[in-house]
Amino acid sequence: WYHYRMPDCIFCQVIAGKLPSYKLYEDDDFIAILDIFPKSEGHTLVIPKKHVPWVWDYPDLGKYFELVGKMANHHRPLSADNIVRCIIWGWDVPHAHIHLIPGKENNLKGEKLPDETMRSLQERFAVSK
Amino acid sequence: WYHYRMPDCIFCQVIAGKLPSYKLYEDDDFIAILDIFPKSEGHTLVIPKKHVPWVWDYPDLGKYFELVGKMANHHRPLSADNIVRCIIWGWDVPHAHIHLIPGKENNLKGEKLPDETMRSLQERFAVSK
Repeated sequence: WYHYRMPDCIFCQVIAGKLPSYKLYEDDDFIAILDIFPKSEGHTLVIPKKHVPWVWDYPDLGKYFELVGKMANHHRPLSADNIVRCIIWGWDVPHAHIHLIPGKENNLKGEKLPDETMRSLQERFAVSK
Repeated sequence: WYHYRMPDCIFCQVIAGKLPSYKLYEDDDFIAILDIFPKSEGHTLVIPKKHVPWVWDYPDLGKYFELVGKMANHHRPLSADNIVRCIIWGWDVPHAHIHLIPGKENNLKGEKLPDETMRSLQERFAVSK
C-alpha cells in the first residue's frame, strides 16, 4: 500500500506500524500524527506514505495539500485563536512532512509530554475520514 | 478576472495593479511577488487573486499548492542549500498568502531593500508560466 519503504527512516517505520505514534488520520496515501515534540496542543505532522525526502518532491502536491487544509480547518475551532500555522522545514527528518501548529503563539516548549496527555490530545484532535 | 476585490486590502490593490510589486509569476488565479520585507534572497509570497482571509478558506487548495510547489522547486537550485522553507502564518495581512523562504537560514533581516536590489532579485527568481 505504499510504494517505497526506507528501513532506516523513522516515518517509514511509523507508517509500517513498527514505531508507535499518536495517529490522528490515515488513508491510502497519507497519515497525520501528533508531533512528539509539540510546540502547541495539537501540533500535527501530515506525512505521505510514499518515501520522498522533501515535500517539494512529492508527485501530487495538490492531493497532499487538500488533506493539510482539511486537517487545518478541523483544528482551527480547537485552537484558542481559530488559527493554525503551517510550516515546511524539512531537514530534521528526510521524509516529507508538513507541520500544522494550532494557535498564534506556541503554548508548549517542544518537549515530550506524558503518554496520558498525548492520548488525550490524540482524542481531541483526531479527524475522521 | 477575480471574484471579489476588497478596496482596503493591500494584496487586492497589488493584484489590481494599484500598488507596485515585484512580480515573479502571474496566471488567472494567482500571483507570486517578492516580499518587500525579505527574510532571505528570493523570499516570495504566493497569493490567490480571489480575496479570502486565510489560506485555509481558499476553495481549491490543491491548485494553490501545486503552484506553491512549482515555485519552491524553481527556487531550490537558486538557494545556497537547495532548500526552500514554506510558512503559512497569516494574521499580518488578512488576504491568503503563503511564504516561500529560500535557504535553511535567513540571510536578510526583513528590512526593505533598494529598488535596484529588488529588481535584480525579481529577475533572478521570476518563473515563466
